[in-house]
Amino acid sequence: MALPQGFRIGTANGGFRRAQRDDVAVMVSDLPCAVAGVFTTNMFKAAPVLECQRIMANSAADVRAVLVNSGQANACTGDEGLANCKETMRLMGEALGLDPDAILPMSTGVIGNQLMMDLWPAAVDALKESLGSKDEEHFTKAMMTTDAFPKFASRDVELSGGTVHLAGMTKGAGMICPNMATMLAVVACDVQVDKAVWQKLFVDAVNVTFNRVSVDGDTSTNDTVLGFANGASGVSVDSAHAGDMLALREVLEDILGAMAYMLVRDGEGSTKVIRIEVEGANSDADAEQVARTVGHSQLVKTAMYGRDANWGRIVAAAGRSGVVFNPQDVHMTLCGVELFRAGQPTAGNHDAALEEPLRGTDVTIKITLGSGKGSYVFLASDLSHDYVTCNADYRT
Amino acid sequence: MALPQGFRIGTANGGFRRAQRDDVAVMVSDLPCAVAGVFTTNMFKAAPVLECQRIMANSAADVRAVLVNSGQANACTGDEGLANCKETMRLMGEALGLDPDAILPMSTGVIGNQLMMDLWPAAVDALKESLGSKDEEHFTKAMMTTDAFPKFASRDVELSGGTVHLAGMTKGAGMICPNMATMLAVVACDVQVDKAVWQKLFVDAVNVTFNRVSVDGDTSTNDTVLGFANGASGVSVDSAHAGDMLALREVLEDILGAMAYMLVRDGEGSTKVIRIEVEGANSDADAEQVARTVGHSQLVKTAMYGRDANWGRIVAAAGRSGVVFNPQDVHMTLCGVELFRAGQPTAGNHDAALEEPLRGTDVTIKITLGSGKGSYVFLASDLSHDYVTCNADYRT
Repeated sequence: MALPQGFRIGTANGGFRRAQRDDVAVMVSDLPCAVAGVFTTNMFKAAPVLECQRIMANSAADVRAVLVNSGQANACTGDEGLANCKETMRLMGEALGLDPDAILPMSTGVIGNQLMMDLWPAAVDALKESLGSKDEEHFTKAMMTTDAFPKFASRDVELSGGTVHLAGMTKGAGMICPNMATMLAVVACDVQVDKAVWQKLFVDAVNVTFNRVSVDGDTSTNDTVLGFANGASGVSVDSAHAGDMLALREVLEDILGAMAYMLVRDGEGSTKVIRIEVEGANSDADAEQVARTVGHSQLVKTAMYGRDANWGRIVAAAGRSGVVFNPQDVHMTLCGVELFRAGQPTAGNHDAALEEPLRGTDVTIKITLGSGKGSYVFLASDLSHDYVTCNADYRT
Repeated sequence: MALPQGFRIGTANGGFRRAQRDDVAVMVSDLPCAVAGVFTTNMFKAAPVLECQRIMANSAADVRAVLVNSGQANACTGDEGLANCKETMRLMGEALGLDPDAILPMSTGVIGNQLMMDLWPAAVDALKESLGSKDEEHFTKAMMTTDAFPKFASRDVELSGGTVHLAGMTKGAGMICPNMATMLAVVACDVQVDKAVWQKLFVDAVNVTFNRVSVDGDTSTNDTVLGFANGASGVSVDSAHAGDMLALREVLEDILGAMAYMLVRDGEGSTKVIRIEVEGANSDADAEQVARTVGHSQLVKTAMYGRDANWGRIVAAAGRSGVVFNPQDVHMTLCGVELFRAGQPTAGNHDAALEEPLRGTDVTIKITLGSGKGSYVFLASDLSHDYVTCNADYRT
C-alpha cells in the first residue's frame, strides 16, 4: 500500500506500554492541510481532545501533523494533563521545525494516568528518526490497546481532474459507542479541498459510519476522528462540481464505513458483527432509537454470542426502547428467517434453519415497525466471555 | 414465618419446566382485596399484564387471588396467548368458586412460547388441593427461573389500631432494569385500606425501590408488582391519620427495598451489589441519569467484577450520561476512598486501600457533581463470566 502523496509516517517504542512494541506515532504532511474533526461528546474531554478543539477553532491554524500515543489516555488528568499534552506538542514541533499548534495530539489508554513525561523527549527523537520509513500498518499498530488486529484501509477515487488517494487508520475495541469511543481514527487524503467543504463531507460521512457502531455502549473521553486533506495530488474538488463532490463523499463513506466495521469486528471479545436494520418507523430518529436499544441489549448480545435464536429478547428490546408503535404491526427477521409477523411468532420451529447462519461472523436483524418512512442501520458486537475477561482485568 | 391473616398459598408442579420442581402457584385471600399494581412500560406487554391492567381498570372488580406460572412468559404470543391466559383464569376461578376476573395472572419464562394448555387443568386441580398447605418460600420457588435463591421477606408494623403484617415474594434475576424487569413481585398485607390510598402508597414505594435497581438494563415484557391488602387484621389506616400513613409507607419501602436488593444480589452471575449515590446535581432527574448511566456501563460493571479500582471508567460514564456539569466540580469516592477531586485524580495509588473493600459483596460509588440539591441512589449488579454463560445458553 502507498500513503497518499505528501504524507510521511514515523513510529517508535516510547516505553509507554509494557509491551515491546511501538506505542507512539506521527503522521506529517509536507503541505498545509485542510483538517476536519469529530470529537467525543463526553463531558470529561481528554487533554488532547481539548487541544485539538482549541487549534481547530483557530481559523488561522496551519495544521501539518498528528501525534498519537497509546498507554495513557491523558483523560481526567486536570491541569497537569493539559500542560503535559502541550509539552508533547512543543517537543514534537521542535523536532520537526513546526509550530506546536501545527500538531494535533491524540491519546488512548488508561483514563486518569498522566503521560510519562520523562520518556517523551527520547520518543520524539525516535519518531523524527523514523519519519518516512513507516506506513499505515505501523501507525495503526502503535495506536493499538486491546485491539486484536490493526485496522486500516486505503482507497482511490477518480475525480474529473485525476486520481485522489485516501488512507484510513483507526484503533478501538472497547468504550465503543453511539457517539464514537476510544476510538481514534485518521484519514489522510491528497485531494485539494476547501476546509469548510471538507469538514462538511467528513462529518456527514462520520455520522453514517463511526456514529452507527457500538461495542459496549460506553463513549470514551478521547474519541477523535481527524481527516487531513493536503492537496498534494494537485487534484481539486469544489462544490461547483457536483459529480466530484458526490464521488468524494462516497469514497469517504466507503473508507470510514470499512474502518467502522473493523472496529465492531474487533470489539473486545467479539465473535460477531450484528447488523440491525430498522424500517417502517415514524421517523429516522425513532428507527435509530430502536436500533440502538437492540444493539445495546446485553440479552440480545449474549444470545447472538450463544448462537441462540432467542428472538423474544430482540422484540422485547424494541418494545422497551421508548418508541411508540403498534405491536400488531411489527415484523422481525433474523438472518433472513421471519420469526415474528404482525405481533405474533411465525409458525414452526426455526432453530434448525438458523443453526448455520448463527455460526457466521455476521448476523442481520431486520425489524419492521409499521408503514412509516423512518429507517436506520446500526452495527453492534456480541457479548462474550472474552469481553468480561478483557475488561475485568484490563489494568493488571 | 406466617402469612398475613386471611391469605392462603398453594403451589404445584405443572410440568411447565423441565425441572422437577413446582412451577405454578396461587395466593388466595379470604376477603376482597384492595389491589395496587405497577406494570412494565414495554410496548410488548405480555398477555397476563394486559389482563391485570384490564381487571384493575374496572373499579367494580373484586380481586381475590394471584396466579403465577414459570416456564412460559406468554409474551409476544398474540391473540392465542391472550385467550390462553383467560382460560387459565377461568380454570382457576372454576376450581376456587371465584369469578375469572377475581384472579390476577402473572407469567415468567421464555418470551414467545405459548402456555402449555393441555397441562393446565391438572395443574389447577393440584393447586386447589395444595391451597393452605404452602408458604411464601414455596410461592417464591414456584416463580423462579434463572434465580439462584428464593427471595421473600416479611414485616410487622404497629399502627394506632394494632399490628399489621406484610409478606413479600419476588422473582427476577435477568431482564432487570430501570422500570422493573421479568421481575414479578407480590406483597400481601392484612391492613384495611382504601384502594386509592393503597395504590398511592404502593406506587410511591415501588418508585424508590424496584424502579431503582438494574441487572442488565433490559426491561421485560412481563414486569408486574402487585400489592394485596385484605383488611383481615381488622386494623385500618386512612389518610386522616398521618402517623399511621407514614408508618405504613415506611414499612412498604422497607419490605420492597429488601426485595429489590435481593433481586440485584441474585442478578444473573452477579457477585456484587454496586450502590451508586449521586449528589450535588442540578436536579434529581440529572442525578438519576448519571446514576443509571454508571450503573448500566458494561465497563464499570466488569471492572467491579474484576475488583479493579479503574475509576476512570466511572467518571467517563458520568461524563457521557448527557447531563451537563462542570468537570472541575466533580468528586468521586469508591468504597469511601476518594479517588477523584475537583476534576483531577487524588494523589497516590489507592489500589492497596481498595483491595479489601473490593472483595466484598457490596461496593458503593459516590459521585458529587457540584453544589446542586439533586440526588439519586441506584443499585446495579456487576457483569461476570457467569452472566454471559447464563444468557448465551438460556434456552438450551
